[in-house]
This record gives sequence, structure tokens and C-alpha cells, in this order.
Amino acid sequence: MIKTDILIIGAGPTGLFTVFEAGLLKLKCHLIDALPQPGGQLAELYPKKPIYDIPGFPEVLAGDLVDNLLEQGKQFKPGFTLGERADSIQKLEDGTFIVTTNKGTKHHAPVVAIAGGLGSFEPRKPILEHLDFYEENGVEYFVKNPEQYRDKRVVIAGGGDSALDWSIYLADIASEVTLVHRRNEFRGALDSVEKVQELKHLGKISLITPAEVTGLRGTDTLEALVINVDGEEQLVETDYFIPLFGLSPKLGPIGEWGLEIEKNAIKVDNALDYQTNIPGLFAIGDVNTYEGKLKLILCGFHEATLMCQTAYKIINPGKKYMLKYTTVSGVNGFDGTKKQAPKPVVQAIV
Amino acid sequence: MIKTDILIIGAGPTGLFTVFEAGLLKLKCHLIDALPQPGGQLAELYPKKPIYDIPGFPEVLAGDLVDNLLEQGKQFKPGFTLGERADSIQKLEDGTFIVTTNKGTKHHAPVVAIAGGLGSFEPRKPILEHLDFYEENGVEYFVKNPEQYRDKRVVIAGGGDSALDWSIYLADIASEVTLVHRRNEFRGALDSVEKVQELKHLGKISLITPAEVTGLRGTDTLEALVINVDGEEQLVETDYFIPLFGLSPKLGPIGEWGLEIEKNAIKVDNALDYQTNIPGLFAIGDVNTYEGKLKLILCGFHEATLMCQTAYKIINPGKKYMLKYTTVSGVNGFDGTKKQAPKPVVQAIV
Ligand SMILES: Cc1cc2nc3c(=O)[nH]c(=O)nc-3n(C[C@H](O)[C@H](O)[C@H](O)COP(=O)(O)OP(=O)(O)OC[C@H]3O[C@@H](n4cnc5c(N)ncnc54)[C@H](O)[C@@H]3O)c2cc1C
Ligand SMILES: Cc1cc2nc3c(=O)[nH]c(=O)nc-3n(C[C@H](O)[C@H](O)[C@H](O)COP(=O)(O)OP(=O)(O)OC[C@H]3O[C@@H](n4cnc5c(N)ncnc54)[C@H](O)[C@@H]3O)c2cc1C
Repeated sequence: MIKTDILIIGAGPTGLFTVFEAGLLKLKCHLIDALPQPGGQLAELYPKKPIYDIPGFPEVLAGDLVDNLLEQGKQFKPGFTLGERADSIQKLEDGTFIVTTNKGTKHHAPVVAIAGGLGSFEPRKPILEHLDFYEENGVEYFVKNPEQYRDKRVVIAGGGDSALDWSIYLADIASEVTLVHRRNEFRGALDSVEKVQELKHLGKISLITPAEVTGLRGTDTLEALVINVDGEEQLVETDYFIPLFGLSPKLGPIGEWGLEIEKNAIKVDNALDYQTNIPGLFAIGDVNTYEGKLKLILCGFHEATLMCQTAYKIINPGKKYMLKYTTVSGVNGFDGTKKQAPKPVVQAIV
Repeated sequence: MIKTDILIIGAGPTGLFTVFEAGLLKLKCHLIDALPQPGGQLAELYPKKPIYDIPGFPEVLAGDLVDNLLEQGKQFKPGFTLGERADSIQKLEDGTFIVTTNKGTKHHAPVVAIAGGLGSFEPRKPILEHLDFYEENGVEYFVKNPEQYRDKRVVIAGGGDSALDWSIYLADIASEVTLVHRRNEFRGALDSVEKVQELKHLGKISLITPAEVTGLRGTDTLEALVINVDGEEQLVETDYFIPLFGLSPKLGPIGEWGLEIEKNAIKVDNALDYQTNIPGLFAIGDVNTYEGKLKLILCGFHEATLMCQTAYKIINPGKKYMLKYTTVSGVNGFDGTKKQAPKPVVQAIV
């Protein structure tokens, strides 16, 4: 059982900034995310694109913003349960919660913050016979650990940035990389398309287009794919098949937690602390809704900050908290680090 | 008469970010500030100190944050009325407002956003006979334009960072810089204290301590100061006297605008758009209050953003606005510039 002060469901920008604000109040956080990496939409959908409306950043790449948020929170030593979806919640008699993931990992906390964005990112799966049988037996929807593919044969399917970028990345690791796409044209960043073109000429990526994977073969694990190329079926031997057809966010099981849902989002008390209809359970960032709600990153930051104030009161009943400016009081990490503005000196000039 | 879409009272971080958010909605802003420079508390009180709780910045100097906010908004060409205090407001029959400053400058706008922080920064003045007579005739409380002091004699009084820093700055511009302080000890950044020490040894700054300015002399303009040094009065000839005894923010005349005031701040509807009890008049950032309010920079950013949505509806009645992501739609400046994420290409790999 993982225990923490604030359990955060969703490691997007809202969840990540919560770690920092909670840390200032000496509250520890643990984050669950269905994706293998933190960053939410920014990391998964547009890591290399610039955002222009983060206050104080005339321009920042989404991936860099995620890195900055991780850096900003790291002295508060957040815990992570990645690659798992929060599936069920149970409120105990003492008012605390137990949240269990699809893989059975249990988390216990007095406060739960749902920062689930548009929902848990679920891969769009190809329609293939016996697909479930091969899942985690050669078929993967995410590249969690690239090293897993060292000196193995990999077939990637897809025509977008993820397919292009992972083909490039794995070209140096896998023994063979084959990229299958149902059109000749790829849609992605110019430099990614050009890089794949170059690696193809160098023989480091094999391209099969226009083509489609139509069957999976193998006794215990995946051994080969049936690929339909222009009406003709080919058998291609491989150790792994990674279809990268995009992710679609699904509110999913959270929709059945007894929360007030409106427009596929969770109603909260925006006049106070973004609490849901269940006391102790908050919803912040894209996942919540209220009159005038804007699904913007900067709004999630504010919501997270206000939410932490009530979390503090729940966790420290009766204790009074005085707002302190970081500039004045510094930041005391849970790892013993202290960041602080240089103190003024009082000194005679002679 | 200055005309604009949103008139912003206060050019602190909240006011400055409003320029950007309004610009995305094609609304133009004009800012009034009592201080000679934008940036509010950050620029005036702690420009060289690091802030740790701006989302996405593990650490940022307050002065740099102000520069970034100015840079982020500049393509929307905000107007500025600096060094003037907004004193009175008049609501016209058509619902628009006229705001007049202490210097008589008039501004006309359909929406007014008070982003006045803790209030208009007013200098703490020394108690001296005939002080008003010499104000703007040799006595100044702000260094608005350093060039004004070129080859002139300047006496600065004070023992903090402002007194130290302006003495250093003007040492290269003025013909003589004299620093008067009632103690021998100065309180400020170590490097400022050391620099003044060095300039004193080089003969570029004269120090008179412990001492106090007790009188002003001069027929039409300031010609000399009476300075009490350890009980003895001296006459020191000078062109300018700049007492830098700190600023204290005062809500001031805004307190008499018919707004609902609580704890020296303006009550707003935080469940919607931070509007005050006067329709079309908003209060955002440190200047407002509501249950759970936190006087933090990041909260002002969110409040400004939501406020702009209602401002848009007031200024464009009946028009529908669809939220656009800057990453997707780019940023179209009023100066003809366009910032935009590189578009994906659709390209065959052969
Ligand atoms: C192309 C694009 C461009 C954009 N441009 C901008 C922009 O310019 N400016 C701007 O402000 N915003 C922009 N946005 C919106 C911005 O990305 C979102 O506002 C932001 O990501 C919301 O952050 P969040 O942390 O609330 O949620 P998300 O980033 O969506 O993160 C939520 C995370 O929670 C996880 N999750 C959800 N449910 C579960 C569960 N049950 N179990 C485990 N994990 C779960 C998800 O997997 C996800 O990783 C853009 C969005 C897109 C798609
Ligand atoms: C030492 C110190 C450290 C701080 N550290 C932090 C920190 O670490 N993190 C954090 O989030 N916050 C911090 N703060 C608070 C932060 O500075 C404020 O939250 C922020 O400045 C508020 O921004 P604002 O734009 O709302 O108002 P302000 O910055 O106060 O700006 C308001 C401006 O409005 C002007 N004004 C007001 N009335 C009038 C009028 N009638 N006419 C003309 N002009 C007017 C004022 O002159 C002023 O320039 C700190 C504050 C101090 C003093």
C-alpha cells in the first residue's frame, strides 16, 4: 500500500505543479498516470510545439515546460505510479481514500486530487484477431523502456509524429526497424520526416507503404505479422509490434465514482477550493468544470494552489496556516535542500 | 482623451499579463501606474530577488519576470500612463468609464480592470518645512529619467537598496553624488554595499553619516540642504534632493469609488469573472478579495485570464468566442507579427 498526503490522479502540468504547492505546505504527493511518462497532453500530444500563453514565457516548448515543472517540484520527492490507470476509489470510515489501479496497486491518502485532464490516455488499437492474447507478449502501445528493444526486431505502424519519432529513436537500438503505414505520405514535423527518409536510405529503417498489418502470428509470443501490401499478403517476422495510432483520452472509470459529471467533466466548487461533491476529493485542471471554465494550463496552476490550502486544513485539522512568500521564506525541500533569496546585509560603509 | 478597450489601473504582473490575454481576444489595453516603471511590487520592492513559485520557473528574478511579461505582451502594443495615479472614475450613460489621474490625464474605456495590488505606491516623505514648495523644483521621490541628473549635484537620503543602487547608478552621471543616512550601517544587497564602499574610496560618492536632512533652502528652486551631522548643522549645496525612504502602498482614492471594500481590498465575484459590484469594473490580482483569496502572482494570472472573457462579451455584445489554443492558432500581434508553431508537413518518404 502506497501512503501519501495528497494522491494525485494525472501527472499533467496541473498534477505536477500541485507537488510544488503541496510541498510548500509540507504535504507529500504521489501521482498516478496511465501514461508511461509524466506531462499529460504536453508530453504525449505536443512535446515539441511552442506554447505562447504560459505567463512569463513569451514562448516555451511543451516538453520543456514539463521538464521545468518536474525540476520545480523535485525537492518535494513526489512518488509516481506510471503506466497504470486509477480504476476504483473507496472512502474509508475515517474519511481517507484508497485508490486502486488496473494493475492492482493500492494507494492510501486523506486527500485525493483528480488532475486527469481529458481523461486517461488510452491507445487506439488496431482491429486484429487475437490482439489481447499478444498484448504484452510482443504487442505494445507505448515505448516505456527503449532498452527492451535492444537487438530485437521491431515493427512500428502509424503515419504521425509518434511513429516517425520512435522509428528514428529505435533505429539505433533495435536490430531491425520496420515502419508500416497505410499511405505513402507521413504527417509530422519536417525534420522527423526528413530523418526517416535519411535512415531509410542508410538501410536503418525499412519502409512498407501503403500497407496494413492484418494478422498476428506466434505460438506463445508474437513471432510474425501478416502485412497486406497493395492487396498482397506478406509474412514479416518480428519480436515486437508497436501500433502507434494515437491516444484517445477517456474519463473512464472515474465517471462511475459518484461524482457530479457535466459535459464529460467533474463539477467543482470554483468559488472556494475546487472540491467535488465528495468531501476530500478535488478535481483540478482540464478535468473539472464550472461556469466560465477555461481549459488552459495557467488555470490549472491556480486551481492546484487553492486546492492545496483546503488539503492542508483537512490533513492538519485545527492548525492555522499563514501564507508565506517563497521569496521571503525560501523553499525547504524534503530532501534537505533549501532555496533562499540572498539575505540583505547590514553593514557600515567607512 | 486616451481611448482603449480595457483600461488597466496598475502595471504590476497582473496588469501586464492582462495585456497578453486581452490581445489574444483582439482587445487593446492601456495601463496607468503611479510608479515611473511597470512591474508593480516586483519592480519596485524586490527586482533582484528570486521567486520560486511561478509555475514553470524553478527560480526567476522578479525583475526578469517583469521583463518577460513585457516581452510577452508587447506585440499587443499596450499604452502606458506612468507616474500618475488614477484618482477618479465616472460611469457614462452608455456604461463606459472615464478615469482621470492626479495630473488630469483622461482615459475612456468600456471596461476597467483594477489591478492595483496593495494600492498606489506613494513615497514616504521626510517631514521638512516647505517640502511641497520644492517638490518637482529639486525634490524628487523617484528617479524617473536618470539623464535629468547629468552633470548636476544630487543628494540622496536613505539607507536601503534604493538609496544604495541609485547612488551607484548616478555616480557616473551626476557631477556630485552625496549619500546621507541617519546611521553608519546600510541595509541592502552585499554587492551594493560593497560597490558604494568602493565608489566612496574613489571619491565618486560622498557619504554623510550619521546625519539627517533638516531643512531645504533656495529662492525658486532647491539650492541647498541643511544637514544635521551629529548635532551640528551644515549647509550642502545641491541641485537635487532625492529622499528614498521607501514607498507605502495606499488604496487611496479607489476606496471612494463606491466599491465593496473588505480588509482594504475590493470584493469580487470569484465564482465567475472577478467583477466588482459595479458592472464593467473588475478587480484582479492582489487588490481583490474573496473567500480563500491568496495574494500570489500566479493567482493574478488566472484572474486576469477569466476577466478578459467577460470583457470580450461586454465589448462585443452578441458575438460568440471560441477558446483557441495559442499552440494551435498562434498569436497574431497588433503590430502585424505572427507567432506560430511550425506546421506539420504531409510528405511521402520514397
Ligand atoms: C494540441 C494542443 C495544444 C494546446 N495548446 C495549449 C496552449 O497553447 N495553452 C494552454 O494553456 N493549453 C493548451 N492546450 C491544453 C493543455 O494541454 C491542457 O489544458 C493541459 O494539458 C491540462 O493539464 P492537466 O494537467 O489538467 O491534464 P492533462 O495534461 O490532460 O493530463 C492529465 C493526465 O491524467 C491522466 N489520467 C487521467 N485519468 C486517469 C486515470 N484514471 N488514471 C491514471 N491516469 C489518468 C492522463 O493519462 C493524463 O496524462 C493544448 C492542448 C492540445 C491537445
Ligand atoms: C518582498 C515580497 C516578496 C514577495 N514574494 C512573492 C513570491 O515569492 N511569490 C508570489 O507569488 N508573490 C510574492 N509577493 C507578492 C507579489 O509581489 C504580489 O502578489 C504581486 O505583486 C501582485 O501583483 P499585482 O499586479 O496584483 O499588484 P502589484 O504588483 O502590487 O502592482 C500594482 C500596481 O498598481 C499601482 N496602482 C495601484 N493603485 C493605483 C492607482 N490608483 N493609480 C495608479 N497606479 C496604481 C501600484 O503603483 C502598483 O505598481 C511578494 C511580495 C513582496 C513585497
